[in-house]
Amino acid sequence: MTQRIEHHACFGGWQDVYQHRSEVLDCDMRVGVYYPPQVAHGPCPVLYWLSGLTCTEQNFITKAGAQRYAAEHGIILVAPDTSPRGEGVPDADGYDLGQGAGFYVNATQAPWSRNFRMYDYIVDELPAWVESDPAASSVRAISGHSMGGHGALMIALRNPGRYRSVSAFSPIVAPSQVPWGEKAFSAYLGERSEAWKTYDTVELIAGDLSERLPLKIDQGEADEFLDAQLQPQRLAESCAARNHPLDLKLRSGYDHSYYFIQSFIGEHVAYHAKAMA
Amino acid sequence: MTQRIEHHACFGGWQDVYQHRSEVLDCDMRVGVYYPPQVAHGPCPVLYWLSGLTCTEQNFITKAGAQRYAAEHGIILVAPDTSPRGEGVPDADGYDLGQGAGFYVNATQAPWSRNFRMYDYIVDELPAWVESDPAASSVRAISGHSMGGHGALMIALRNPGRYRSVSAFSPIVAPSQVPWGEKAFSAYLGERSEAWKTYDTVELIAGDLSERLPLKIDQGEADEFLDAQLQPQRLAESCAARNHPLDLKLRSGYDHSYYFIQSFIGEHVAYHAKAMA
Repeated sequence: MTQRIEHHACFGGWQDVYQHRSEVLDCDMRVGVYYPPQVAHGPCPVLYWLSGLTCTEQNFITKAGAQRYAAEHGIILVAPDTSPRGEGVPDADGYDLGQGAGFYVNATQAPWSRNFRMYDYIVDELPAWVESDPAASSVRAISGHSMGGHGALMIALRNPGRYRSVSAFSPIVAPSQVPWGEKAFSAYLGERSEAWKTYDTVELIAGDLSERLPLKIDQGEADEFLDAQLQPQRLAESCAARNHPLDLKLRSGYDHSYYFIQSFIGEHVAYHAKAMA
Repeated sequence: MTQRIEHHACFGGWQDVYQHRSEVLDCDMRVGVYYPPQVAHGPCPVLYWLSGLTCTEQNFITKAGAQRYAAEHGIILVAPDTSPRGEGVPDADGYDLGQGAGFYVNATQAPWSRNFRMYDYIVDELPAWVESDPAASSVRAISGHSMGGHGALMIALRNPGRYRSVSAFSPIVAPSQVPWGEKAFSAYLGERSEAWKTYDTVELIAGDLSERLPLKIDQGEADEFLDAQLQPQRLAESCAARNHPLDLKLRSGYDHSYYFIQSFIGEHVAYHAKAMA
């Protein structure tokens, strides 16, 4: 069951919000979808955007200003909510665990394991739903911000061939090593174990990968979470050690907000458009 | 007393939010100010943006995507809150009267007359505060949305020579003739009188003006308030009767939201940039 919740003309295309039933998450999920004007002429490639802590499907579609670039390049933008939601879904105090903080993993621990399976949702169920619409091709790219930057990098690395390109803004690159990730992984995955490494970008880069998909990352140097939670040097070191292609741009003066994202989202959309052409 | 509340790098410039004391409104007011990178080389012209019902200084700065264009053209953007605010300020039930609904008039009726003097604030006190910063020149343009489109048109027409150009999205062009305006004017100005006409764009156009400043207006044809509250044909008729230059673009499919504004704000910023060059 899919319901259209919002429908707005935007840059010659349509910014929609849908609610659909997720079997994987056992709840209804909201997703923002931008259809560029080019869908009138045939299927368009899809850029998935994974948002950060506390976000819903609304943040990216209202604040990033990405639709202009998607309309220029003929790309569909898909921005899902960041976790399962609703009354039957577990939650926790604090903004960094539970609803709004799915961390794009498949939880194995109670009470989370029934609903918190965002990895499977993003990798399989969401694209299947998106691609059931003839407007969307199966050519995919993925990007995201902060917790969603972690999700985008980790998911692209774990699924060779599935995405033509990946990028991130201010990503959590080593969740196993920083407070946000340690809290979430402990709750969702249990005590520190090999399972943590399978959701950790720096660990994945250090391992054997059948594909060395280049990483494009923008990071603000005035980001208030830079030292405690983001630590991009860990990724730079891991990529250097394995010769993994990394384009890490440190942006002087920029913080963690959508003002940073809107300033550089045009470069990211153009990058993905080229990769998906 | 001015306090900087927010400070974000954005498109090579800075998106700030300030709180300053307004003597006219007898309260503290918040204002979003975008400084483009060009302020490093000398004073820049200023585009004032007046927001619509329920908005604060946040809506335009987070949702319109205007900073990109302001950075291209070297224009400062100033987006004030839409009414006086705070505990000592009167309010009313409903989103269309009181706080968040100042209608850019000087109220003459109790309990509004002490604080609700948005006309004087926008025309005099706000630009004086803005221009006390050497980054801002005294070259001005004005635009706005819905209630703020009314404010921009009415203020520009009443103050010949003060603004180089004026534009609006989905403006309330005849507040004396539509429910939103009738409710607000009755409360702020009392029973229907000549005073209403001095705040009504269609009435101002019909009168004698020392300057016929061209009006640039975008209006979505799928706007949910089009027939009941906006009625752009009233403006078209009034302009035609007085030979007042009007560029009214009706946009098929577009609604009243910021998705509409973000789609065409680039054209408006370019228009004002040219007029202020």
